[in-house]
Amino acid sequence: MLEELKQKVFEANLKLVDYNLVVLTWGNVSGIDREKGLFVIKPSGVPYETMIADDMVVMDLKGNKVEGRLNPSSDTPTHMALYNAFPDIGGVVHTHSPWACSWAQAGRDVPAYGTTHADFANGYIPCTRGLTEDEVNGEYELNTGKVIIEDFKKRGISPEECPAVLIHRHGPFTWGKDAFKAVDNALILEEVAKMAHQTELIASFDKSYNIGIEDYLLNKHYRRKHGKNAYYGQK
Amino acid sequence: MLEELKQKVFEANLKLVDYNLVVLTWGNVSGIDREKGLFVIKPSGVPYETMIADDMVVMDLKGNKVEGRLNPSSDTPTHMALYNAFPDIGGVVHTHSPWACSWAQAGRDVPAYGTTHADFANGYIPCTRGLTEDEVNGEYELNTGKVIIEDFKKRGISPEECPAVLIHRHGPFTWGKDAFKAVDNALILEEVAKMAHQTELIASFDKSYNIGIEDYLLNKHYRRKHGKNAYYGQK
Amino acid sequence: MLEELKQKVFEANLKLVDYNLVVLTWGNVSGIDREKGLFVIKPSGVPYETMIADDMVVMDLKGNKVEGRLNPSSDTPTHMALYNAFPDIGGVVHTHSPWACSWAQAGRDVPAYGTTHADFANGYIPCTRGLTEDEVNGEYELNTGKVIIEDFKKRGISPEECPAVLIHRHGPFTWGKDAFKAVDNALILEEVAKMAHQTELIASFDKSYNIGIEDYLLNKHYRRKHGKNAYYGQK
Amino acid sequence: MLEELKQKVFEANLKLVDYNLVVLTWGNVSGIDREKGLFVIKPSGVPYETMIADDMVVMDLKGNKVEGRLNPSSDTPTHMALYNAFPDIGGVVHTHSPWACSWAQAGRDVPAYGTTHADFANGYIPCTRGLTEDEVNGEYELNTGKVIIEDFKKRGISPEECPAVLIHRHGPFTWGKDAFKAVDNALILEEVAKMAHQTELIASFDKSYNIGIEDYLLNKHYRRKHGKNAYYGQK
Repeated sequence: MLEELKQKVFEANLKLVDYNLVVLTWGNVSGIDREKGLFVIKPSGVPYETMIADDMVVMDLKGNKVEGRLNPSSDTPTHMALYNAFPDIGGVVHTHSPWACSWAQAGRDVPAYGTTHADFANGYIPCTRGLTEDEVNGEYELNTGKVIIEDFKKRGISPEECPAVLIHRHGPFTWGKDAFKAVDNALILEEVAKMAHQTELIASFDKSYNIGIEDYLLNKHYRRKHGKNAYYGQK
Repeated sequence: MLEELKQKVFEANLKLVDYNLVVLTWGNVSGIDREKGLFVIKPSGVPYETMIADDMVVMDLKGNKVEGRLNPSSDTPTHMALYNAFPDIGGVVHTHSPWACSWAQAGRDVPAYGTTHADFANGYIPCTRGLTEDEVNGEYELNTGKVIIEDFKKRGISPEECPAVLIHRHGPFTWGKDAFKAVDNALILEEVAKMAHQTELIASFDKSYNIGIEDYLLNKHYRRKHGKNAYYGQK
Repeated sequence: MLEELKQKVFEANLKLVDYNLVVLTWGNVSGIDREKGLFVIKPSGVPYETMIADDMVVMDLKGNKVEGRLNPSSDTPTHMALYNAFPDIGGVVHTHSPWACSWAQAGRDVPAYGTTHADFANGYIPCTRGLTEDEVNGEYELNTGKVIIEDFKKRGISPEECPAVLIHRHGPFTWGKDAFKAVDNALILEEVAKMAHQTELIASFDKSYNIGIEDYLLNKHYRRKHGKNAYYGQK
Repeated sequence: MLEELKQKVFEANLKLVDYNLVVLTWGNVSGIDREKGLFVIKPSGVPYETMIADDMVVMDLKGNKVEGRLNPSSDTPTHMALYNAFPDIGGVVHTHSPWACSWAQAGRDVPAYGTTHADFANGYIPCTRGLTEDEVNGEYELNTGKVIIEDFKKRGISPEECPAVLIHRHGPFTWGKDAFKAVDNALILEEVAKMAHQTELIASFDKSYNIGIEDYLLNKHYRRKHGKNAYYGQK
């Protein structure tokens, strides 16, 4: 079932390797069929070189495996939580890409320092609070999803205006209208996280040390690419 | 029309990918036919892998599309402004290459720290002032070009002696005698920006902390490669 | 003899190149046949491009060459010491990968800053004490092995819970159930070492500066991938 | 004439590209025939992709072009000075590799921080004094060579024990028994320079901040690979 979606999710997973976002078996991509209420996800711990489209696992939105010979990614409950809470997203990605992970390990939101960031997200990229000991020892991956959702709600950020989050001490999740767009967002997040760090370092050698994109420039660039008045790209 | 220039600009755009200066659909290259007063530019938001030479868009120097099925790059008015102000340049490039962007985000000119820089530009590489809120909310991309031109005039820098600029909070534009040379300059700028940062970091561990190329060495290297007494390369 | 193991160790050595962990002739991988008490190791100073499986050298666990036209890696006594002291390991790797070496040169243990680390090791990754002048001028490579073993014993770390060590002023050794797993661990160590440094730098720009993974999260991630209750991957 | 040497020097130049030590037309490699007293060097400003072995230029040790359609590298007088002063070297390389250049731009010797360095050079890697204004405005490239030679003499370093130097504000020269070994040394220098910087940064987060390889360990590693008691590699 869902052979076309399986092929797409499979190819999107391989893009993680092409984009140098993962090594070994790290990372996972999923994509959802909203009509059927089923999502397709990478199996757990399978090498990218030998993986085939048919290895993808089909899950329902309550966490039941619907089809697949293999165990789904151990991060599956996080994907599920995001699909349930964010009804407009079509794909979810988790990686351990080094720059995004380093910000997550430092426990810091990524500040908006320039237009590359503003083209991507309408403000800083949040790093969640740490999970409590109970949350970690309980349904850990599901609780990871819950903390993301709680965090976006509390800060008043919508998943449309920021397609990425950093899990405290862990790493990034990104999403998009489908699996491919979610992977593109994982790549952009890594670029943005790298540049944000370099910006701080470079600015630290300058006496005036003035960083942080101006609100009007942030809004301009965000709206140039997103929303009904966007004028980047083709119709 | 301008089939030869379209092919050249198309190939120059692909070099951005080869040189690791862009990801996804980022970046754009244009080239001009000075006799006809028309320039050719990458279409907006088209992936490099599927783009063909015939996707290039032909523009006149007042901002009218003369030929092309697709929308031109959203940065087209900046290219146009540069062609109008700098009559000797034949190609223009915009990227979000990470080191150049990081300096732009930090709002700093790139100081001349060594001969790699001096081979490229006859002094520091300027970072423009930030655009005002009105400039951003008005004809943003055209105003970006105007700020570059204002900046070079105010500082007394000619586009020949410095083929690159950083837009505050944004990223680099470079130019050259044709589209290929403008792309080469985008690559050199990225190398120079990376080394400038590394130089500051390495020097910061040294008590004497003495950086900045001497004027006579800057001039020697610049004149070794540029101008009528240049002796680098073949005749 | 041991043709199959030679082939495997040969391929594992080539993976060091694929993973960008070595340049030129640097690095070496070995694998052991525990039943026969013999291990197979890369020859010393042979380029990866021209090396063939039959160049691998067979050694016994007392340091005698059992088969092979070429000299074994000069680091062979370190490999031997590890096989003798750690009876459950099946492969050993030494590289000069830049991030792991930089931590070793700085003489620092790599702190556990996040879940990428916790997936790999159940706590910090130790950097050994420096070898004494006598140890260096005596049986240097054997003494390197002895210092690793002493270090793990003194700190109460088992080779299972931390499959990597940094030799003071030198670089990393890693191990695993076979040669391939030991190479994977060399790659993970490099990623973890890189991220640990980036985490410190990024956190240094934050007033609250709070890094170091919480114990319960470290344990959760370590046990998610290791031991009898692991649930990552396939059965 | 010297067709075999031309082929070798040509291939050694291409290795600069393979090793990611150069972009565009940067860098140059030469090799010498000591019996004939002639050396072969890359032509100036020719792209690596279109260069052929027959483009190499033959020079004598007084700076006369003996054969070749093209101008030799503008750095030719520096190569010549090194061949004249260091009678045992067979190949010379100049690059603008970013880490070596960054140390040169910072005006710092690269300290010996670990065994990767000690395998390469028997102590720190010197950065020369800056050339005076007269030296720059006179026979610049020849004076660059003279300053290297003066520097090695003054510090009592032999070209055998340190096959690399950094030119103040400029970049590295390396040498070796032939052109290929000189290129290998350019690669090792870049690795060593990168690690040295990373070591300082990593150590700066540690209260005890103790870096610098111990003399006995430096000597051990240097002698393990160099001189009559070397035991690394094959006979």
